[in-house]
Amino acid sequence: MLADFEGLRNATVRYLTGHPMDALLVLAASGEALLVPWDVPLAERRARVEEIIPYTRFGRSLAQALKELLPARGLARVELSAAFPYPLVRELAEALPGVRLGCRDDGFDEHVAALRAVKDAAELEALRVACSLTDELSEAAGERLAGGWRPTETELALFLEVQARERGAESMSFETLAAGPGRSFAIHAFPPYSAASFGGPGFSILDFGVCWEGYRSDVTLTVIRGPLSARQERMRETVTEAYGRALSQVKPDADPRGIAADVDQFLEEAGFPMPHGLGHGIGLEAHEAPYLSTRRAAAAPLLRPGMVVTIEPGVYNPEAGGIRLENDVLITATGHEVLTRARLLEMEA
Amino acid sequence: MLADFEGLRNATVRYLTGHPMDALLVLAASGEALLVPWDVPLAERRARVEEIIPYTRFGRSLAQALKELLPARGLARVELSAAFPYPLVRELAEALPGVRLGCRDDGFDEHVAALRAVKDAAELEALRVACSLTDELSEAAGERLAGGWRPTETELALFLEVQARERGAESMSFETLAAGPGRSFAIHAFPPYSAASFGGPGFSILDFGVCWEGYRSDVTLTVIRGPLSARQERMRETVTEAYGRALSQVKPDADPRGIAADVDQFLEEAGFPMPHGLGHGIGLEAHEAPYLSTRRAAAAPLLRPGMVVTIEPGVYNPEAGGIRLENDVLITATGHEVLTRARLLEMEA
Repeated sequence: MLADFEGLRNATVRYLTGHPMDALLVLAASGEALLVPWDVPLAERRARVEEIIPYTRFGRSLAQALKELLPARGLARVELSAAFPYPLVRELAEALPGVRLGCRDDGFDEHVAALRAVKDAAELEALRVACSLTDELSEAAGERLAGGWRPTETELALFLEVQARERGAESMSFETLAAGPGRSFAIHAFPPYSAASFGGPGFSILDFGVCWEGYRSDVTLTVIRGPLSARQERMRETVTEAYGRALSQVKPDADPRGIAADVDQFLEEAGFPMPHGLGHGIGLEAHEAPYLSTRRAAAAPLLRPGMVVTIEPGVYNPEAGGIRLENDVLITATGHEVLTRARLLEMEA
Repeated sequence: MLADFEGLRNATVRYLTGHPMDALLVLAASGEALLVPWDVPLAERRARVEEIIPYTRFGRSLAQALKELLPARGLARVELSAAFPYPLVRELAEALPGVRLGCRDDGFDEHVAALRAVKDAAELEALRVACSLTDELSEAAGERLAGGWRPTETELALFLEVQARERGAESMSFETLAAGPGRSFAIHAFPPYSAASFGGPGFSILDFGVCWEGYRSDVTLTVIRGPLSARQERMRETVTEAYGRALSQVKPDADPRGIAADVDQFLEEAGFPMPHGLGHGIGLEAHEAPYLSTRRAAAAPLLRPGMVVTIEPGVYNPEAGGIRLENDVLITATGHEVLTRARLLEMEA
């Protein structure tokens, strides 16, 4: 049993049913799916399930819904999503004395995360559209910037949003990050875009993605405008080398944690220890399995054909700014295919 | 101990420290606050705490951070945020054998929610700016619509976003909902804005808000363009009456659940049972305590001066569309003050 509600979002409900939001989903061992959505007309149009029951029937109470639904269907053993808060699990256990509840980290959620990590043909099709739109946006922004446009971070971010929506995107993948030279040193500048200028001398980071039918791209390009200091030159060379080094290792049976560890060590030795992971899976969420990160458990599954991950090395310095390059990469039977064309955009001084 | 991380957002970290994202916060009974942020430079600029320790020092592992921080400071009893997932609490309990952990629904989170529900002077100042910008946006959109503009839902939503950012807003309060006559019957149309037309004959709902220094407004206006059917006329009268009926009850010592029950009954008897709550608090989150809703526990605290809530009755019909009116209301010592000026915008046929 899993749920997708405000404060407890879970894209697996959409993955399994097509229903995009606000619902409780009970999957029976028999194979039947019971959806309890807030918005019934939306579910009737979109959900591929055997049964739809309005959440309002239970006063929109999870405990009440389960009390009425589970015993009546003879469901006596239930695994709960690992995302459920501790007090909620305790409350459900009290409300359902006849039902055996389980809630664990290596259970259903993890199983589905592994399924979701390998994209099927329809998912790849949606991701390819998202990536292709992303490239169109990168090019449109790059052309304007090369033509002398010096937008504020906000103007640039909203330009992308307008372009994405005009092309039919469902939304941006996440809040666009546009950080000009004065703010690009931060991992995630706050707020993500401001009235500061973008694209002037130094490094300006643009991190964005496009959501198409729920599937999300994620790229970062860095605008580089000279004159650069010796340190900035070294940063540019370092991130370029780290990117190539990472990409060359992306193929079936590679260990994502091992790739991350290799690049971490390279960047550390170059004098720019990386404050974030090297990459992550993308799909219905902008961040999902597999993770190319050393802070994850060692037992990460090996890369497999059909996985789509970001590769996004970055180097940062409080004075020199930050530079990051990120593309989306599909693991193929023989190696990989880079789905996006983000790059370092070098501009005239 | 509470945390604000991806998938586990908790605005209370910002409320208590000023640090806007991605951090672990340990509050000691001595009154000292220890912040473990991901972005240290951001914390150094913004956080009002005694101590800042980089999260990267612990490999960005919650269990590791607590193992190193708690016993060393003699913190042997710790209450965890009630938002923590069940497996995480179990993991922390195993990792911290010498520490007594508590995690309950009526604990620290609920205590802080009650504090956050009553705004202090600085918070009200930020909310007033957010509300004032919201009115400017409503007026700008209303003028253009009255002048003959027939935007797509997307054009309208992005017009508001551009206007908000130009006025210095941190962000929108939430994803703007723009639903033209063909989609306004849904509680939360999906996607929230589309290529469909907004403002034609019938009801078009615009639900949006502006975030200023973290504080979020939330209003809904409905564009009404005739000719209306008899049912649509009745819907307009019903929502107007429900709104006035609700507002007249908003004052100190009123029971928010009682107000919601009264309006629910009124709408039910009018033939339009309401599929959502009557209102909710606003502040650092677009939805927070107090809730004017019958689906919440009966023991909701009474309204108090300094609380700011939405009042948002709506009536919906699959054929006739939906109509909702929502404003933000401050409870004052003697009654209330409506902070925003959203209304039903009646347009020429």
